[in-house]
Amino acid sequence: MMDHIRKKDDISVNEFIEGIVKGNRVILAQAITLVESNAKRHFEKAQQMIEALLQKQGSAIRIGITGVPGAGKSTFIDSFGTYLCNSGYRVAVLAVDPSSKISKGSIMGDKTRMERLSKNPHAFIRPSPSGGNLGGVSRKTRETIVLCEAAGYDVILVETMGVGQGEFVVRDMVDFFLLLVLTGAGDELQTMKKGIMELPDLVVVNKADGDNVVNANKAMREYNTILHFLKPYTEGWTTRAVTASALKETGIKNIWQLIQQFDCDTKKSNIFFERRSEQQRNWFHELVKQELYRQFYDHPKINQHVSYFENAVMKGEKSVAASAFDLLDLFVNNNS
Amino acid sequence: MMDHIRKKDDISVNEFIEGIVKGNRVILAQAITLVESNAKRHFEKAQQMIEALLQKQGSAIRIGITGVPGAGKSTFIDSFGTYLCNSGYRVAVLAVDPSSKISKGSIMGDKTRMERLSKNPHAFIRPSPSGGNLGGVSRKTRETIVLCEAAGYDVILVETMGVGQGEFVVRDMVDFFLLLVLTGAGDELQTMKKGIMELPDLVVVNKADGDNVVNANKAMREYNTILHFLKPYTEGWTTRAVTASALKETGIKNIWQLIQQFDCDTKKSNIFFERRSEQQRNWFHELVKQELYRQFYDHPKINQHVSYFENAVMKGEKSVAASAFDLLDLFVNNNS
Repeated sequence: MMDHIRKKDDISVNEFIEGIVKGNRVILAQAITLVESNAKRHFEKAQQMIEALLQKQGSAIRIGITGVPGAGKSTFIDSFGTYLCNSGYRVAVLAVDPSSKISKGSIMGDKTRMERLSKNPHAFIRPSPSGGNLGGVSRKTRETIVLCEAAGYDVILVETMGVGQGEFVVRDMVDFFLLLVLTGAGDELQTMKKGIMELPDLVVVNKADGDNVVNANKAMREYNTILHFLKPYTEGWTTRAVTASALKETGIKNIWQLIQQFDCDTKKSNIFFERRSEQQRNWFHELVKQELYRQFYDHPKINQHVSYFENAVMKGEKSVAASAFDLLDLFVNNNS
Repeated sequence: MMDHIRKKDDISVNEFIEGIVKGNRVILAQAITLVESNAKRHFEKAQQMIEALLQKQGSAIRIGITGVPGAGKSTFIDSFGTYLCNSGYRVAVLAVDPSSKISKGSIMGDKTRMERLSKNPHAFIRPSPSGGNLGGVSRKTRETIVLCEAAGYDVILVETMGVGQGEFVVRDMVDFFLLLVLTGAGDELQTMKKGIMELPDLVVVNKADGDNVVNANKAMREYNTILHFLKPYTEGWTTRAVTASALKETGIKNIWQLIQQFDCDTKKSNIFFERRSEQQRNWFHELVKQELYRQFYDHPKINQHVSYFENAVMKGEKSVAASAFDLLDLFVNNNS
């Protein structure tokens, strides 16, 4: 098998498109790597591919999954994803981890985190790179979703770690957002980032098994009380808390039924499609921002003069503002 | 008194400069409002003022203060600031709160949070606006520091709330960074954002008074053990934990002595000045980024065409990437 894997630089745009549409997982993985690449030579190729594949997108549902540390995200995704595969769906799992400035770390170091799902032929798991700058990954998750949908995956699970602004970033990429929690609502809420409870469409109290069932039910009631006082994120949908056990695989079917209900309700009310357009617009402005910044620093005049201004600023010879404006003038007035 | 307050639009750049240098607190407050303004007509005036005041900066020390919720930041700043004023220093307190996307709120709704300090003639407290978009405040904190230093304040305390990336933003604006904690290191560490323990130059276990003294000393030892395993943020300086009681005003003098020691050591090793230059460079690049983005969206051609592309993207008639590149072409090639 290994000798059939070709380097991504040797694969043409058309071969990528064909391979993805046929559901070739090796080609899909290579296409994602191409999209995530920061190399200039990969950029145009990736854009052509995405442009063509946008036409091939089906009607997948995009589900964001987050949770407090220890809530059992991996086990839950393993269990939920396997249930979906057994029900006839194809499932893709992606990870988003907007890296913090100092701490680095991978959320999906290896596929053993989701042992059963990773062996399922109807599942595709995309781990995030272990260490290094993860900016590229979080930046390209939207594009990766396009590729997975073109490859025929019906359910896209986007996992976020709960560091930095990860949840807010993912909330703006998905249709449905699920927050995984443990028992002990009061204590747990203390440790949650402010605003997190305002994001989910469903709260799942995990590990509702064995001796923990009573506590899990109590936590579910507590969360439902809290949710009662919050404005639901999705208009026309009531965010509620339910219990589940990823380990014992109970409550999983109920979760999927709620998601299908959500899908049906929000499509009927058009909220689903309005949100998708809104997300498209946000994606557009983010890409404009990124590209503007990239084109600026790649510009020969800027490249040539930036260190002069940096030095002047660092030595205190020229003010920060004056230097910034002078540098900008080189770009804005002289790039025709 | 009130009838002497003029509107900031009626005050000339020279009057601002003169008033600030003379230590007029009303003028200083108005100058900060001018700097924070997003109105175009205020921008150039603010730049001229900052440019001139950069020459008047003294040798103030900039101290960042953060802490877990409930650690007693307000009481600590009230106590520490009052101690400094009584020791002959002039103290300015600023707040940084990079707003989260959903939750809004003021960290310094009113000055009663720091009751004693707010009445001290040698102190200047700048509250953050209550509600609304706080982006302007966090964006202009560096400029506000310049104004306060020109006004003769010797110690600048920059408070951050511990939401989002606040600590990382403030760490890059200050010389010394102080983390306020409570007893119960183990539990508390769980609730702290990842990477926070790598930032401070000093950890202060607050509320070391009454029955809590034994626990506070225990927490101090635990924090010192943890710190022993971390690389200190400032080269050549050992980050340590101490106890204090803002309420009983114990440990405050010791903290100031440590900060003075830090000031002396890092100036001798040049680390102090190297860090300041590095911060200047980062400030420069941030300003370039902000201005580039502002000039782009203010550009007549962009202004005129952006909604066409937005609509095309939202309706799915044109891809996000193609739209972004077409919009950028209008700016990059047609603005001479």
